[in-house]
Amino acid sequence: MVEINPVVHGQMMAIPLTLASVMRHAERVCPDSRIVSITADNSRHRYTLREAFQRVRRLANVLHNLGLPSGTRVGTLAWNDHRHLEAYYAISCSGYVCHTINPRLFPAQIEYIANHARDRVLLVDPAFVPLVEKLAPELRTVDHFIALTGDRSVLDGTTLRWLCYEDLLAAASPEFSFPDLDEDAACALAYTSGTTGAPKGVLYSHRSTVLHTYAVTMPTAFALSPRDVVLAVVPMFHVNAWSLPYAVPASGATLVLPGSKMGDAAILATLINEERVTCAAGVPTVWINLLAYLRTKRLGVPSLERVIVGGSACSRALLEAFENEHDVDVLHAWGMTEMSPLGTVNTAPRSADIETRLKQGKPIFGIELKIIDAHGHELPWDGVTSGYLKVRGPWVCRGYFQHTDSPAHYEHGWFDTGDVATIDRDGYLQITDRAKDIIKSGGEWISSIDLENAALMHPLVQESAVIGVPHPKWDERPVLYVVSKDGTRVDEGSLRHCLARHIADWWLPETIVQVDTLPHTATGKLDKRALREQHAAVMK
Amino acid sequence: MVEINPVVHGQMMAIPLTLASVMRHAERVCPDSRIVSITADNSRHRYTLREAFQRVRRLANVLHNLGLPSGTRVGTLAWNDHRHLEAYYAISCSGYVCHTINPRLFPAQIEYIANHARDRVLLVDPAFVPLVEKLAPELRTVDHFIALTGDRSVLDGTTLRWLCYEDLLAAASPEFSFPDLDEDAACALAYTSGTTGAPKGVLYSHRSTVLHTYAVTMPTAFALSPRDVVLAVVPMFHVNAWSLPYAVPASGATLVLPGSKMGDAAILATLINEERVTCAAGVPTVWINLLAYLRTKRLGVPSLERVIVGGSACSRALLEAFENEHDVDVLHAWGMTEMSPLGTVNTAPRSADIETRLKQGKPIFGIELKIIDAHGHELPWDGVTSGYLKVRGPWVCRGYFQHTDSPAHYEHGWFDTGDVATIDRDGYLQITDRAKDIIKSGGEWISSIDLENAALMHPLVQESAVIGVPHPKWDERPVLYVVSKDGTRVDEGSLRHCLARHIADWWLPETIVQVDTLPHTATGKLDKRALREQHAAVMK
Repeated sequence: MVEINPVVHGQMMAIPLTLASVMRHAERVCPDSRIVSITADNSRHRYTLREAFQRVRRLANVLHNLGLPSGTRVGTLAWNDHRHLEAYYAISCSGYVCHTINPRLFPAQIEYIANHARDRVLLVDPAFVPLVEKLAPELRTVDHFIALTGDRSVLDGTTLRWLCYEDLLAAASPEFSFPDLDEDAACALAYTSGTTGAPKGVLYSHRSTVLHTYAVTMPTAFALSPRDVVLAVVPMFHVNAWSLPYAVPASGATLVLPGSKMGDAAILATLINEERVTCAAGVPTVWINLLAYLRTKRLGVPSLERVIVGGSACSRALLEAFENEHDVDVLHAWGMTEMSPLGTVNTAPRSADIETRLKQGKPIFGIELKIIDAHGHELPWDGVTSGYLKVRGPWVCRGYFQHTDSPAHYEHGWFDTGDVATIDRDGYLQITDRAKDIIKSGGEWISSIDLENAALMHPLVQESAVIGVPHPKWDERPVLYVVSKDGTRVDEGSLRHCLARHIADWWLPETIVQVDTLPHTATGKLDKRALREQHAAVMK
Repeated sequence: MVEINPVVHGQMMAIPLTLASVMRHAERVCPDSRIVSITADNSRHRYTLREAFQRVRRLANVLHNLGLPSGTRVGTLAWNDHRHLEAYYAISCSGYVCHTINPRLFPAQIEYIANHARDRVLLVDPAFVPLVEKLAPELRTVDHFIALTGDRSVLDGTTLRWLCYEDLLAAASPEFSFPDLDEDAACALAYTSGTTGAPKGVLYSHRSTVLHTYAVTMPTAFALSPRDVVLAVVPMFHVNAWSLPYAVPASGATLVLPGSKMGDAAILATLINEERVTCAAGVPTVWINLLAYLRTKRLGVPSLERVIVGGSACSRALLEAFENEHDVDVLHAWGMTEMSPLGTVNTAPRSADIETRLKQGKPIFGIELKIIDAHGHELPWDGVTSGYLKVRGPWVCRGYFQHTDSPAHYEHGWFDTGDVATIDRDGYLQITDRAKDIIKSGGEWISSIDLENAALMHPLVQESAVIGVPHPKWDERPVLYVVSKDGTRVDEGSLRHCLARHIADWWLPETIVQVDTLPHTATGKLDKRALREQHAAVMK
């Protein structure tokens, strides 16, 4: 006989996990923590969290007065600065959805995304006012255009009815009572800039964002504390700047926002040294440029303790340069837009072996991983067997905005990352390749990433890319593209010799193509789809 | 016209926050992290998290085979050791409620609590087998008695039908599929050992416990990382050992459990030095005894980096002894059984002023504080104004187990702590007194705690207690009780002189009583209720 009985519930307070709780915590517990940012109208804007959240309340009044229903998408086209931060909180805590749009996308993509999200308001950095002026006739749902500036002159000669952000804030009350929200309510929206198909939106909830904030702050992830000064070089228009706009205030640290200067190594070096930055987050390209600049100028970064490297894999050269030249720890991190974004962080100590330290790290508490074969069977965590990587957790998406189903990506409660990976017995993840980039040769797999890394071991190779091309006997074979460091041709014999030292014989590419540049996506990633098309066109 | 619209929900995975997720994370991501414990049958039991959770599955099979409905309370009367840890996870993750009973309570209280909770199973350390044998006739709901031992000889001569833990585990399968649980399901139950009224149960949920685990682990709280070795001197029968049994495995650290030896300074010193403990948690008495022992034996604790001091206020002498004699940081923490327990932690750096550093600290992310006056009006955070302290957060209770209402403690979504406190502009909490202990004299408040601390500044005073007694003119006046360090009488003149240097004139007690000992509760706290009764009896 089966005994039927009701669930015995705990008797704890039903307090929803909302971003308003991050705001209340930050402004009451760390009121004097600072936000430093670079904007078009101020080379170094500074204020405290207390002042920041007073302005957030003013902005909430501005939005409230527009009479938008809750859940309305409010778009932003903006850099990393204090006004964008205010928008993050005012929009989400008011019950609207903060839709960050990547201004580096092609205009047609921006138009598609704003229309698909049905943005009713756009908050726009002065740098993107001309772009929006051009796109406006196609933006079918936008009623309100707000320029993120205090300088009305940037609007001279515009044709749209622009509102000026600082004028609106000055006229608004600093008192605002934020609504009580359901923790499952949407708070933010980010579109993936995939290389195939139309962009797809990931709709984050207050709950997922708060839980992600807790996890990101832990010592097994970014280890954020009040004594940290955190430089966010990862854009706020790209997966919520890896949640730093939430996690840094929640931990009482100082947040440094480089505005439009994310690609300017000289300004980044100055910010690090003048603001005494302890922790900085960004993609490998940012750090490669910074290190080159520091070398040229013979500069140090003595305050810097650790860098978070994500977006693409961290190379051994990058890790060793930070450690050996600047005594800076590297936290190699991995995630996806669909994961809020953080999935794994490598916090292995310097005493661990280099192979382990170059992996993408261990899942942060809350994220579960598994690798499966083509038949869906789970594969062992032995550090050798590679399989399709699936993930689950409270900050992983279960579908895309206004897509009713996504069967390819979300099956049996697990999200398919599209990556191929190994996991070792301690839980260290190593991404071997994108599932669509792996080269299937004679029934075996060749990792395009491993082959690219082997090419990078050659001292004259600046960048490398490997694609698979059809082969009558082996099904697929790799083709290697390389860009040289000094613009001259790399000696093919020495390159093949170098490859042979690092990879198996049967992985060696029959064809090596030397080019001046390789195609990249709007977010700076190697665009293998474009490279395949380019290769196919040339081969015809 | 009010626009009615449905909530737009985020599209993130609905993964419940359950203790099974802590278990899965710990065993997959930190399988080799260690648990070290002292038991009656092993002076130093060691195993890994992987081995621990294999045994948890065996125990889950044992419990499953008892055929208990979900939500059943399973009681424990046990010390801090690996078997108790296994019970924590096996009980909660199976959908039962882990009811930790304080074996130091009076037998009548234990009987009351076990009956009130309707415990169906009791897991009992061999040390408490005789106690349970005596109580058994009154334990109306318990069907199964399990002795936490591998040594059947400890059951010789017993009359109950005892099951032997290690025999049960050896016979059980190590395979078990834990049920999917609602995150609001109850996971644990702890009774408060208040000095007034019957004990009251706090029923924790999986959600509240997981969220508390996240918060406790953050750098603004205990900052637990895989490189930590954590000694839990706070009992697992008292508010889940401040959540260390969850937070330490979740962060990949090593957990050291001192068994029944929590009061033995020599063994604690040995554990710290042999296991290279980095972080230790306990009440002030534990640390006072340890420091005295280290002084006598001229011993150091070089691996120890920080101690978490809670349960009672940390004195300046204790904080300075750790810093000056051992270069150990003190994390002063505050909480309550009703708060899971952590509310605030002081992580101010040593460079901060000593007054700030002696406060109970700032609320951890998720906990909100307020102070109110007698009319319910909120008071300012100025570090001076004191008021009744109320708290809220997802790991604060909203009622007591099988009490339908608790109006005095839970009003308008806030829990009344029963404390009087100040909060400064940076959010640092300072508990001034218990609301029921504060002395109302001539319309003003005298803090019994401040007066006790002033008495402790006298070099010969070991312990002090202040109670209010009725006074015809001033309403109430303080009476000071002191215990001397060496058993001799403290010169009253020098004591009064010492007090006058630290407190206002009108706070000076008319009466000072010197005694050999003061009454304490079962959890080691000063029992002012008993002292008041004792004082009233003597005064008659």
